[in-house]
Order: sequence, then structure tokens, then C-alpha cells
Amino acid sequence: MFNSFGNIFRLTSFGESHGKGIGGVIDGFPAGIVIDEEFVQQELSRRRPGQSVITTSRKEADKVEFLSGIFEGKSTGCPIGFIVWNENQHSNDYNNLEKVYRPSHADYTYTVKYGIRDHRGGGRSSARETISRVVGGALAKLALRQLGIHITAYTSQVGPIKLEGNYTDYDLDLIETNPVRCPDPEKAKEMQDLIYKIKGEGDTIGGVLTCVIKGCPIGLGQPVYGKLHAALGNAMLSINAAKAFEYGDGFKGLKQKGSEQNDVFYNNNGRIETRTNHSGGIQGGISNGQDIFFRVAFKPVATVLMEQETVNIDGIDTTLKARGRHDPCVLPRAVPIVEAMAAMTILDYYLLDRMTQL
Amino acid sequence: MFNSFGNIFRLTSFGESHGKGIGGVIDGFPAGIVIDEEFVQQELSRRRPGQSVITTSRKEADKVEFLSGIFEGKSTGCPIGFIVWNENQHSNDYNNLEKVYRPSHADYTYTVKYGIRDHRGGGRSSARETISRVVGGALAKLALRQLGIHITAYTSQVGPIKLEGNYTDYDLDLIETNPVRCPDPEKAKEMQDLIYKIKGEGDTIGGVLTCVIKGCPIGLGQPVYGKLHAALGNAMLSINAAKAFEYGDGFKGLKQKGSEQNDVFYNNNGRIETRTNHSGGIQGGISNGQDIFFRVAFKPVATVLMEQETVNIDGIDTTLKARGRHDPCVLPRAVPIVEAMAAMTILDYYLLDRMTQL
Amino acid sequence: MFNSFGNIFRLTSFGESHGKGIGGVIDGFPAGIVIDEEFVQQELSRRRPGQSVITTSRKEADKVEFLSGIFEGKSTGCPIGFIVWNENQHSNDYNNLEKVYRPSHADYTYTVKYGIRDHRGGGRSSARETISRVVGGALAKLALRQLGIHITAYTSQVGPIKLEGNYTDYDLDLIETNPVRCPDPEKAKEMQDLIYKIKGEGDTIGGVLTCVIKGCPIGLGQPVYGKLHAALGNAMLSINAAKAFEYGDGFKGLKQKGSEQNDVFYNNNGRIETRTNHSGGIQGGISNGQDIFFRVAFKPVATVLMEQETVNIDGIDTTLKARGRHDPCVLPRAVPIVEAMAAMTILDYYLLDRMTQL
Amino acid sequence: MFNSFGNIFRLTSFGESHGKGIGGVIDGFPAGIVIDEEFVQQELSRRRPGQSVITTSRKEADKVEFLSGIFEGKSTGCPIGFIVWNENQHSNDYNNLEKVYRPSHADYTYTVKYGIRDHRGGGRSSARETISRVVGGALAKLALRQLGIHITAYTSQVGPIKLEGNYTDYDLDLIETNPVRCPDPEKAKEMQDLIYKIKGEGDTIGGVLTCVIKGCPIGLGQPVYGKLHAALGNAMLSINAAKAFEYGDGFKGLKQKGSEQNDVFYNNNGRIETRTNHSGGIQGGISNGQDIFFRVAFKPVATVLMEQETVNIDGIDTTLKARGRHDPCVLPRAVPIVEAMAAMTILDYYLLDRMTQL
Repeated sequence: MFNSFGNIFRLTSFGESHGKGIGGVIDGFPAGIVIDEEFVQQELSRRRPGQSVITTSRKEADKVEFLSGIFEGKSTGCPIGFIVWNENQHSNDYNNLEKVYRPSHADYTYTVKYGIRDHRGGGRSSARETISRVVGGALAKLALRQLGIHITAYTSQVGPIKLEGNYTDYDLDLIETNPVRCPDPEKAKEMQDLIYKIKGEGDTIGGVLTCVIKGCPIGLGQPVYGKLHAALGNAMLSINAAKAFEYGDGFKGLKQKGSEQNDVFYNNNGRIETRTNHSGGIQGGISNGQDIFFRVAFKPVATVLMEQETVNIDGIDTTLKARGRHDPCVLPRAVPIVEAMAAMTILDYYLLDRMTQL
Repeated sequence: MFNSFGNIFRLTSFGESHGKGIGGVIDGFPAGIVIDEEFVQQELSRRRPGQSVITTSRKEADKVEFLSGIFEGKSTGCPIGFIVWNENQHSNDYNNLEKVYRPSHADYTYTVKYGIRDHRGGGRSSARETISRVVGGALAKLALRQLGIHITAYTSQVGPIKLEGNYTDYDLDLIETNPVRCPDPEKAKEMQDLIYKIKGEGDTIGGVLTCVIKGCPIGLGQPVYGKLHAALGNAMLSINAAKAFEYGDGFKGLKQKGSEQNDVFYNNNGRIETRTNHSGGIQGGISNGQDIFFRVAFKPVATVLMEQETVNIDGIDTTLKARGRHDPCVLPRAVPIVEAMAAMTILDYYLLDRMTQL
Repeated sequence: MFNSFGNIFRLTSFGESHGKGIGGVIDGFPAGIVIDEEFVQQELSRRRPGQSVITTSRKEADKVEFLSGIFEGKSTGCPIGFIVWNENQHSNDYNNLEKVYRPSHADYTYTVKYGIRDHRGGGRSSARETISRVVGGALAKLALRQLGIHITAYTSQVGPIKLEGNYTDYDLDLIETNPVRCPDPEKAKEMQDLIYKIKGEGDTIGGVLTCVIKGCPIGLGQPVYGKLHAALGNAMLSINAAKAFEYGDGFKGLKQKGSEQNDVFYNNNGRIETRTNHSGGIQGGISNGQDIFFRVAFKPVATVLMEQETVNIDGIDTTLKARGRHDPCVLPRAVPIVEAMAAMTILDYYLLDRMTQL
Repeated sequence: MFNSFGNIFRLTSFGESHGKGIGGVIDGFPAGIVIDEEFVQQELSRRRPGQSVITTSRKEADKVEFLSGIFEGKSTGCPIGFIVWNENQHSNDYNNLEKVYRPSHADYTYTVKYGIRDHRGGGRSSARETISRVVGGALAKLALRQLGIHITAYTSQVGPIKLEGNYTDYDLDLIETNPVRCPDPEKAKEMQDLIYKIKGEGDTIGGVLTCVIKGCPIGLGQPVYGKLHAALGNAMLSINAAKAFEYGDGFKGLKQKGSEQNDVFYNNNGRIETRTNHSGGIQGGISNGQDIFFRVAFKPVATVLMEQETVNIDGIDTTLKARGRHDPCVLPRAVPIVEAMAAMTILDYYLLDRMTQL
């Protein structure tokens, strides 16, 4: 039950880094939606390795093949099966990992839990699994587009370099104009330089993504154990390397008192709105019609190209030096993944909200 | 489906602030556990209002009545129903709220979502619902105790006053020695003074709780959409006023590079351990046998005793001044709630892990 | 997770025969429905023991107390907690059962499964649990009534005495005119006499209930693992003593060929209908707008007031003779239970169907 | 959520009759099980069309391709993706169905529900979907085999020809010796002749399958809404064309009184057993260690090769004569499907039972 995401709209994924492919089944997708396959492919391309000098040099076409649930270009309401076939896998890069546990990877915990492990490229724990999320998210976006809901993520911090402003301070149309996916061109350049330098050292660096959801109707969210922000938090924390989630003012708001944090209501030409948005568009776990925004922290990639202490599968101390082609920083490629998880969550909750009143 | 928490161990809660009571049903609790009712009551007393000068002056006995699932002092494996009857409710305190939306409360979003609202004391959105969590958590703790798993939370920040050290720097036995539930007595005093001062202003303040889980076996966690930290994050974000969750090094770790963040393995007298614990005891979404720790941020309580701008239910601009007895800071009373949510999550995942191998 | 019934509309029940009471939590009930408590009580009275000479002579008031989720007479969309307090329990009747397994009861299987058992009156396995179903079903009926959906069950067989006709051959308004709840007054008399005779022998007898759902809209049902008839079958087989389920022509239809069984479509004044209804109103797992009907078989009650061979909890052969007040035939009292399970299923599927298209 | 089957062991299926293929994802399969792919293929061959003169003459290789979750011949605990590619599809056979609703098929109900329909060969409502069940069931059988649990189904009735005895009266090793899959060779011949004759008429016929589960441990089943027989009933009723389910004595037992139906316990050389098995191995919804047995009725296939009245998609009366290659009787090919559904249910409940006690 834990390779599935969502309640009504539900993605079930399968596949390992060096198996036949990564795929999934999308159940509960509304019938009658035009499936723009080119758009799905574009989203996959935003996630794809080898996009720029600051991502891994692995070249993967990552072409999606839909297997069911679409008839004459439209969703039928039946489950949508799909697969992205693996290719260009260099399994030999991982031969030296068969008998050793990589630090801060899932090698050790998988082995203890399952008693068996596909060591090639991290197997199921590889971030390559996120391909299925991007496909699911792309379909969700197609449905949300019809509802006027739009989701945008961007890199707001890389290591110590961070955007000081709120998302409202930037022109989000600039996000895709640089390989870091940061709406501030100057900071983007700094971030890019840092990643390039870190890559040269064989090291890695983490950062923060900010995500904004515009056009979300009032009323999405299921109290008390299905609060919208908890669902978004759960979705984000399921992404590889995610370490933290905050929405609205999050940690930053702790220095303010209640009288400062409260978002007072006012009548804005017949529409009830809030003068501020410290709440991040969610109150009592339910969307209030304001923009929803949140931030996700990603740790530095665990694979560093330098010698590290570790133990082997017999528990004996040893050292390890990773080979292969790895990302020095996941942030740029994580942008479409964060958007995908948000899109699937919002579509799921949109559908759930329909059952509130008869 | 959203008033239930957990997969195998599952708490379903009901009740409103000013209804007959707060209760729930605990399904999937293992059979044969001795139910120490006194312990359950102690946990409720830690959550209870009126404990000290820095909490609300409301007096609520909050006595739990078990309705089923226990026979001759032991759990039977059948669902455990329970209720805490409401008393000492001053519904009149809320008469002025019937026709107005309190800023940063759930009043407005509930009304739009459901088309109807129990306005007395926040109704279902009241933090009084957390009573059921504390009862569920107390039972979960009784089961976890048999497994040698122990959970401890404490206040690590109130407004701008924060503990700079890690949980390992403090004597956690000191937590319950002060009303703030902070293991650093000096900081506790500062926090207490601040809360008292804020209370006098009719204002409120937020903060951070830190939680530590010791003795968790290796292997708990369900990749990929049931990662242990995602489950914990989801649990914590479901608590009223929670705004952020981070585990391990979280946001703080972003300044470090991968080579610094990685937790290298070594053989510690026959046991595989990590030299550091930046991962917070979870790798690849699965517990690795090290201590699990995480932090949860709570915003200032939305109810402030000063006049605020707002709109009424007809959408007309007005002002509001809250009456009644409210908490200036939820942190001290949130400690047992955070522990309860963690306990229920860990027990649920412990049971889930049993199905991994035949 | 298995003391809950339903997906969106979800009843979670608790309670044992001789515990404090039987209750539950109804989650996902639509907001804004007027809760007619008198109607709920009437439904409980139809299930109540002591209604007539052919049911058990136990007198139980079975008065429902709602605990939450209702405000000013209407559902709020929040979970509806409720309890029916136990009274008039003669626990002493069961003292002799503490150390012995009653044949064809759940005593033995519960003991092996849970390692512990509340032996008083069957504990959780008692049909008294169905009280919570009748409450849930009564609320579901209130919602379905607004949608023009009506559910009626009746006794169509007791032991060897059976109604030969289809539900369309009877005046269903006659069902409540006799204690057996059979729409054929003559057969009802025969059935009643048989039950009375069997009761005198200290024995028990089984039978069949037929249930009809009228006014169900086209489109309810979730292929492929949530077919409407499978959901109904699952619901019915969850009732104590149920042994079989068939819908439409069921077993009876096996003698016909496909050309005879098919329900051909025709245009009935602008409405697509079928000339026959062998399908029982469900095709491909989805309602087709015709009446839905099905039959449920109930075995004779296992408690007979005569000496029976058995073993005690130490596995030693012994004999047992039940005492107490028991039903000679569950059919009459099972009528409101079958209706309740059907009502909850249909409401759940009605809500689910809303998510099919955007 | 309704293209998934099971709780812990969970099959999610996808695919249409004339799409690219039929596949699925198996989640929750225990790690470390040797995957005998040849066995899986044998099971598919038992379901495959074109096996004999009494099944459809369509030739489909139905070769399974596993996509993930297996490493070096063993299950890894990660989701097992698979696909059976479609071939030999004669979509043109269905051109005449694009604008007409076939009687007693899902054409009409799917169209109303989804607003769109893949008309080729029934699309998603085709029994070709059961391929994914057979794959899932084969894997479940491999796990159950390790536990000593064995599942066998056979044809016990075709039209009016039925086996009068109980499963204990036959040599179940004879089942696979004839194309009808009936353990009574004489009755098998009669059934085969009947099917052959019906096929010649362009008509179809239904029947009953009996299924026996041997070696099931005591304690499987989740009261009260997850009773083992209810789970089996739900599983069986999800199979295309299933109309009825009964377990133990089912409808047949209604003529007996309680004193006759009860299965008394006795000590059989240290093991508690029942002298009879009217209960079908399940008491109070929980397996009692005796053989589990049940029966499933299947209606005649709806596709008959003769002219039938119907309406077209504009609601206008018309007639229809099916073309193509169809089964005159589903029973023989349904045997492995019933076994598969039973195997998946039992494995799921075996895993669930592990969480009953700590």
C-alpha cells in the first residue's frame, strides 16, 4: 500500500534504477481530459539528467509510453498505465557497491528491512523513481489547468546562497531562463557557479525549493487528519533527500506575536480576502482562496566522489569511493518533482471536496 | 476517512469543543497489552488546561472513560472506544462569534466548505480534539514500552528564545521540572517570563518543540510513499497551529556539503552504527537504529485579546475582540500531543514492518 | 482498519455485548442533512429484541445518544459519534461459557487469534454490534431519501418455507404488518408458526432476506475491484450469520442460456430501459437505473438450548447447554440491518461517483 | 482506488482488451520469495483462450513480462510491475459496437458513468483484465506454498448439470484431466457435450465453481468488517459474470435447524477440530483450521451470436448480432481466476493476522 500516493487520484509506482524501467498506474483520473502527451514529455525533460553542466552527465531520453486508460486522446476514467524504459544504465558503475553500504544512502536500511537488496544504482531507493511522479503530476496539471489552478516551484536557496524575498518579489516567468531554475538572475548565476565549483570538488550541496499554488478554490482540505498542509508536507517529504517542510511563514514567523501573524479579513470588492498571507493560504487545514506557498529543504546528495569511511555487508570497516555520473545538487531537477507532487495532492483534494455536501 | 489516523493502528476521533465530549475509537491495538488507566490519565493531565500560570485558566478535568475493547485490564484486540466528557464549557464566551470570522482561525474556511459551522469554541477545529490523540498516544506508549521504545518531546524555542544545543546536550529528565517543559532550566525561566509578559498584553507567541525517539528498531518505514519521516511529518502537521517540520539536520544542514553531512558507518563492537547522526535516525525513509529526532514549529495562537479587523458572515467589514480564557502559548501543552502523534506513528510502523518478510 | 465500513461515508464501530455500550463514529456524512433522531430510534426499534413472541425476550431499550457532528439539528460534516448504552445485561447467563467453546460461535477462533476473549455474551462477536450499523444506516437513509433512493428488505424464506415469487409479485407495504416482516401474509403466518414451534424445541432456524433498492441513479459502481454488487455482497456477508449472497437471478439463473438471460435494451419514451431485469439492476458492476435486488442467506442461530458436545479451553471434551434468552430465528430482526448495510453502501458509492468526471 | 485489490498484499491492475496490454503492480509481496516464472506462465496458460474446443478459438500467447521487484530470481519487497502484451486482437470485430449497446454488457453503464468508452472488445470491462489477477494469484500461491496452504477450484455445475456431492466426495487430482476442469469424469463429459452443443447454437451457458482451501492456519480473518468469508465473497464477486457466492453450507443449509447445523468441537488427538464442517472452515469471520470451501455462480456469457434487440448510443431501437470468437461458457477458464482471487485474499489475511498480538 505504500508504493501508492493519493486517495481518490492515486498513483501507484514501480521500478528500479537499473531494472527494465520506471512506471506506474494512475487510478481515479477524471474521465474526458485531453491527454497532451507532448506536455507530459516536456515535464519529464525538465526532470531529465544531462540538461546542463550542473546536472549529472548521464543521458537518459526518459520517453514515456502510455499503456492504457487513454482512448482517442482522452482519459477514459480507467487506470492509466505507463512506463519509461531504462536505457544507458551503467550497472558496472555499481559493482563495487554490492558488498558495501554507502553512507547516508538507503543501502543498509533496505538490507536489514528486506533481507535482500538490488544494489545497482540504489535500486528502488533511487531518485529515478520520481519519473513516475512527474508523469502523474503532468496529468494532474492537465486537469488542474481546466480548473484554473497553476503550480510553480523554483530554487530559492543553494547552500548558503538564498533569495531573501518572498515569491511575490520575483518575476516567476524567469524561472526557466536559467539552469538553476531561480527567478532572480543574479542569484541564479551565483548558485550556478557554486554548484559548478562543488561539482569540481567531487562534492555535493543542498538547498531549498519554494512552491506557489495559484487559483486554488476555497474549501480544499480534510480536517482533522487530512489537513491540506499536512498532505502537502507528506507529499514533499516523500521526495528523495527532502529534510524539511514549512508553509506560510513557517519557522520564520516564530519571532512574531499572534497580533502580528494574524491575517485579518476584509471585503475586497465583494470577495472576502486577507490583508496579509502569513497563513500561506491554508487555515484550519483548508484552503482560504489566497495563494498557497511552502518551502522544502533538500540535503546534499549523499553520493560524493571522494573516499569515505564505511562498513561492508559483513559489518567490517572499510572505505568506499563512488564512481559514476552523479548530480552535485538536486535542486534544479527537483523543481518539476515538487510541482508534480503538489499537483497530484491538489487534484486529489479537489475531488475529495466534492463529497462534502450532498 | 479523514478523522482517522494510522494504517494498522488507527485512531478515529470525534467531538467538538462545546459538544458533549471528545472521544474516539482505537482500532488495531494489539491484544493482550495491560492498560494502565492511571498512565493514560497522567498523559491527559500533561495536556490539560489550567496547569500553571502560563496556560489558560480554564479548568477541565479531562477524565477519560473507556467504553470497550478492554477486558479484565487488558486489551482484547477489539476496538477501544473512549470519551472525555466536556464540562466547564462557557459557550456564552462565543456568542459574539456566531456572525463573525475570527482572523487566522478556521471559521471562514469551515463555513465555505461545509455550509454550516458550530461556532462555539471553534467546534471541531478546536485544539480540544487533541484529547483523543493523547489517549491514543498513551495506549501506543504502553505498547512501545514493552518494545523498549521511548519518546520524549520538549520546548526548544519560544518566540526568539531558543536552545542552541542539540538534544544530546541536555538532561531530558529536567523537562517536566518546569511549566514550559524545557530541559534547560535557565532558558525555561526566560521562556516562562516571556509567555507571562505576552499573556499580560493579551497577545500570544509561538515556538518549536523537539522530539526524540530512542530504542526504535532498524527497519521501520515504508518506501516510497510511506517513508518514516514523511509519516512523522504528516502526523505533526496535523496538530493545530503546526507550521513546519524538519528531521535530522533539516534546514540547518543546508550550509554543509555532502561530504560533511554524510553519516559514515562503522563497526561499534559488532553493531553497525553511524559516527554522526545528521540523518536523524532515518535513511531512505527507514529507521537505521540511531536516535530519531525532529522539530515542529507552532505559530502563535490566533486568539488574541485585542481588537482586530475582520468581516462578518455577510462579508461586511467589522472588528472583533475575543473574550474568554485562552493560551498565550501552546508549546508547553503541545509536548504530550507531539509525543502522542509520534507514539502512534511508530507503533503503526512497527506493526507494518512485520509484513515485510514471510 | 477492520472495524470500519465504507470508503467515503465510513462507519467505525466499537462495543461488546456486555460492555458499557455499542457505539461508533460516522465519518464522511454530508453536511447540512437534517437529522431526524426519531427516525433513527424507529430503525433501532425494528432491530430491538423483545419485539414479539418470536424474538428473544430480552428487553433492551436501545436508545441512541449522539455525541458530536450535529449542530442545531443538522449534520455539520464533522464525525458523528454515538453510543447506545447497554442495560439489562445478564452477564451471569454466560458464567458457564468462560471456560468452554460454544459450537459454531466465534469463541474458539477469537481465543486462538487474540489470545484473550471477553466471553460475556459473545463479546465483540455478538450480533449486538449491529446496533451501530442500524444507526449508520438510518443516517444514510436520511441522505438517500433526499436523492429519491429507497431501500426495502423482507423475509422471503424461513427454513423450508419460501416465497416463490419475485419482489415485484408482492405488496411491499405489507412487510411491517407482521412480526416476520414478510409481504405475503399467509406465508408470514406459516413462518411465524414454524419459528414459534422451533423456539419451543429450544432450537433455531435460518432463512433468506430479499432486498430491493429503488430509485438508484445510473452509474454507481467502481470497476473493477469495487463493483457495486461486490460491495453489496461484502456488506451483507459482514452481518453475523450470513452465509450466502446472490443478486439478480443469482443461482436460479444458471439453468437459462445467455440468449434467455440477457436483458435487452429498448427506448421507453425517451429513457433507455431493459425489458427484463435478470441483471438485478447492475451491469459491469455499475447500476443501470433499474431496480437493484439481491438475496442474503442466514444460517440458524448457533445458540440452541439443548445439550451439545464441545471442548473446554483446555481442549478437553465436555458438553454444554446454553442458558439465557436467545432468538430462535434472526431473520425478522435482520431486516433493518440488511437495509442499513445497503443504505450505507449506496450512499458511499453515490459520493464516490461524483469524482468520475471533472 | 478501485483498480486495486487487497490491503497489505495489493494488486493494482490496468489495461483494456484491445489496448497495448494488461498489466499491474503487486505491492506488499513479501521479500525473499523465489519467483518461479514458469509456474506463473502455467497459471496464465490455464486461463488462456484457445485451450480446447469448448473455449473461444482466439489464440493469445499471454506471456508475462516482469518489469520490477525481482532481483536474481527473488522478490525484493519492492513493487512487482508486470505486463502481458496484447496481440492477435481483432479490433475490427467490434466496429459495429461503436454505436450500439450490447445487452447485459457494461457498454451502457460505462458510457453513462464516464461519458466516454473504449468500445473495442469491452475495453476495461473485458474479462481480459483477469490476466492481471492470475499473475497476482500465481505469486500469492508461491508464497502460500511455503506456508503449506493450497487452493483448488473446479467446475461443479454447468447449466443444469451439477455435481451432487461435496468436494470431499471427489478426487481433486482429476480436475485437470478434462477441459471442463471437473473432478467427476462422467459429469465432465456431459458438461463438455452440453457446452459444445450450446456453442453450436451460438448461445452460452453459466454454472458454478467450487473452491477449497486446505492448510489455512487458525486465526485468519478480521472482525467485524473484514470477515474472511466476506473478503472471499468480495473477491469472487469482483470477477466478471459472477452472480452469487456462498460458503460452507450456504443456501443448502437453510433447511436444517441450528442443532443440526452446528459443528461441534472435539479433541482429535490433541488438536481441537469440528466433527462436521457446515461452517466451511470459518467461524465468526475467522478461519478455524478446517478446510475452507465456497461456491461461486457465473451467469452465461452475455455475448451470443444471434440477433438481439437493443438501442444505439442515440437511444434509438435497433438490433445487434455479435461477431467474433467468444466463449460459450466461462467456467473452465474461470477456475484459475477463482483460485487466484482466493490466493491473494488468503495471503493478504495471513499478513494482516501478524499484527494481532505484539
